[in-house]
Amino acid sequence: MKPNRLNAVVDGVFAIAMTLLVLDLPRPDNTAHVAHDLEVHAAAYIAYLVSFATLSVVWLEHHGMMLAVRRTTRYFIEITFVFLLFVALLPWPTALMAEFANDSVPSGLVTFLYTATMLLIALSLTGSWAYLSRRPGVLVDDLAMEFRRSIRRTAGVCLLYLVAMAVAVISPVASLCIDGAVVLFLAVTRTPLERAEAMMDGELDRSAP
Amino acid sequence: MKPNRLNAVVDGVFAIAMTLLVLDLPRPDNTAHVAHDLEVHAAAYIAYLVSFATLSVVWLEHHGMMLAVRRTTRYFIEITFVFLLFVALLPWPTALMAEFANDSVPSGLVTFLYTATMLLIALSLTGSWAYLSRRPGVLVDDLAMEFRRSIRRTAGVCLLYLVAMAVAVISPVASLCIDGAVVLFLAVTRTPLERAEAMMDGELDRSAP
Amino acid sequence: MKPNRLNAVVDGVFAIAMTLLVLDLPRPDNTAHVAHDLEVHAAAYIAYLVSFATLSVVWLEHHGMMLAVRRTTRYFIEITFVFLLFVALLPWPTALMAEFANDSVPSGLVTFLYTATMLLIALSLTGSWAYLSRRPGVLVDDLAMEFRRSIRRTAGVCLLYLVAMAVAVISPVASLCIDGAVVLFLAVTRTPLERAEAMMDGELDRSAP
Amino acid sequence: MKPNRLNAVVDGVFAIAMTLLVLDLPRPDNTAHVAHDLEVHAAAYIAYLVSFATLSVVWLEHHGMMLAVRRTTRYFIEITFVFLLFVALLPWPTALMAEFANDSVPSGLVTFLYTATMLLIALSLTGSWAYLSRRPGVLVDDLAMEFRRSIRRTAGVCLLYLVAMAVAVISPVASLCIDGAVVLFLAVTRTPLERAEAMMDGELDRSAP
Repeated sequence: MKPNRLNAVVDGVFAIAMTLLVLDLPRPDNTAHVAHDLEVHAAAYIAYLVSFATLSVVWLEHHGMMLAVRRTTRYFIEITFVFLLFVALLPWPTALMAEFANDSVPSGLVTFLYTATMLLIALSLTGSWAYLSRRPGVLVDDLAMEFRRSIRRTAGVCLLYLVAMAVAVISPVASLCIDGAVVLFLAVTRTPLERAEAMMDGELDRSAP
Repeated sequence: MKPNRLNAVVDGVFAIAMTLLVLDLPRPDNTAHVAHDLEVHAAAYIAYLVSFATLSVVWLEHHGMMLAVRRTTRYFIEITFVFLLFVALLPWPTALMAEFANDSVPSGLVTFLYTATMLLIALSLTGSWAYLSRRPGVLVDDLAMEFRRSIRRTAGVCLLYLVAMAVAVISPVASLCIDGAVVLFLAVTRTPLERAEAMMDGELDRSAP
Repeated sequence: MKPNRLNAVVDGVFAIAMTLLVLDLPRPDNTAHVAHDLEVHAAAYIAYLVSFATLSVVWLEHHGMMLAVRRTTRYFIEITFVFLLFVALLPWPTALMAEFANDSVPSGLVTFLYTATMLLIALSLTGSWAYLSRRPGVLVDDLAMEFRRSIRRTAGVCLLYLVAMAVAVISPVASLCIDGAVVLFLAVTRTPLERAEAMMDGELDRSAP
Repeated sequence: MKPNRLNAVVDGVFAIAMTLLVLDLPRPDNTAHVAHDLEVHAAAYIAYLVSFATLSVVWLEHHGMMLAVRRTTRYFIEITFVFLLFVALLPWPTALMAEFANDSVPSGLVTFLYTATMLLIALSLTGSWAYLSRRPGVLVDDLAMEFRRSIRRTAGVCLLYLVAMAVAVISPVASLCIDGAVVLFLAVTRTPLERAEAMMDGELDRSAP
């Protein structure tokens, strides 16, 4: 099976999850105190931003992975649906972040659930890499080295989320900062496969990014 | 007509239905008793999981079917829309499961409606197979034997859902277990068409799944 | 510009509008009277069904039209967005039908708005046909005759919706019946372009549909 | 990386944002005064229309831009996700417009937020143009002149939105009129790239639009 249709479902779920986030964005209660109301809900707006940015970079990681996949198997599709389960779930803890913030400080327990969902997304992505690395037949090329690096990359992200979960109960704000740092790290670094592709295109020799 | 655009609508409806499920996932009432609140709504979370997993494996069945379809006819598109009607409906009984659970035990009548929706999904898929098996002109190849097997497979699923509906009024939990067992059965077994394709690829000779 | 991306947006809006309909489907108030509650909301369930079926057959009409379009122009895309505006609007009057039914009889004024939205969908589709018929350069082939027939077909549907709007204020149920009859008419008849295509495929000579 | 999958996500987010707008469209309170209720919410219906039309013409601008993009880079995809963040956000200020209108006059502060979101959409689109104009390697052809014109076009739109934001605090209605005028301007004029394409097709020599 070619990966086109699977990609269509993945793109659909990402697009919908990213757009559904807006439904739970808190609205000011009255126009007299809009500025104050927006300030009170600061934690919710930051959680919205972190969730949207996380889905963006995770999509980029998945997109990078699929560049190497020539055809899909039933098991790979099933791992992808587990991955989508957690992607589609993210609006739920994001809405909880908005609901249970106290004086613009998010609740520790809710931040724990929020980061746990991100960990599950990262874990299922690591699982996809691990599965693919044992099935060279479905790949476009021999990319063993890039795959080992990719597994290390996503496993590192999982580790960071574990730290963020432990931190959540002590300081929810610090935990959110780690979640945001993961996004920044994934945004400014290329995946191993992208780097390989960019080298072939002679892109990395250029000074511009 | 080529099936590309029909697939786009099918993939869209599945992606949306799978992501909309999250909107009715119950939220804890206050942070003091998050753990307790999550426990109270256990039936809702299990129903969410079963619905998501059912849509995943049904998508896989539909995807497997479309591999054999070379071009679509008006009647086939119309059967597909009936199928999509029930797929798009699934978030409704899933939300009812969340609403009417009592001490984390789902209501019998609601479980009946929930499983009935799944039966309608399976029935319309069986209808698609039956229609295709009488129209070899729209198929990529002569697959008569695989088609008979596929009809038996989906008809078997319909039968299991009928049993689950009868069980629902006595024990909703047992009924949900049958729904979950159907998902597991469809997840671990290949469809007849996939098996035929995998054999051609020499995949079934390999030890790995 | 090739029509691929425009089709992607059209398919997306249809898939979402069809799936969003479920969000406003009334839910029974308590499990003791589920059967009674479902009966009270009968008008809402029928409106849901008519809306879903209307979007299905309208998608089929649009799909049939796009088979003839080789490339798109800015004006054609803009007409298509007007068409999508009304398609995306349909869940709104459908929700009103659910809200303002009295003893399972829908409100006359709301049925009027509901059918008016369908008229606007049909009118914008007729506009697309009319635009295309004056721009043979964007079409795959000379299809002047099929186009005249298609304009008559959609214009006829507009007329039926006008009748249904007039009837709505007297008998909402009769008006809904006309809306349903339009769906049936569009479902059982082929569009002129499809008939031309089917004839080329030698399909109309076969006895099976 | 080819732009196909990025386009799929963009088309998905636009289709969903356009369709989600309908969820916050105000509903009349009772059937006795439907006409009166619809009049009271006039500002909400106009905001719905302006938002839908803005997303339509912005999609057209983005679609026109992507015609020139042969392959995507990580940075370009990230700019696109910033663009999508603001596109997906638009239903939020649109819902505020519906909520805080007073006697069908929208609130000044909310109109300010509403137009600010549109400015952010236009700014991120201008950023995409600016990035592309410095990376000729990702483009299908040498289009330097068309790119300079396109940057000026979107930068002009940004300027108009800035004016509309300043006007919002004095007269929300005048501000909404400017937002509507931007839509009309973008709808009736071709983008520089489209004009170049149309000239090659000999389309501009024809009298019909």
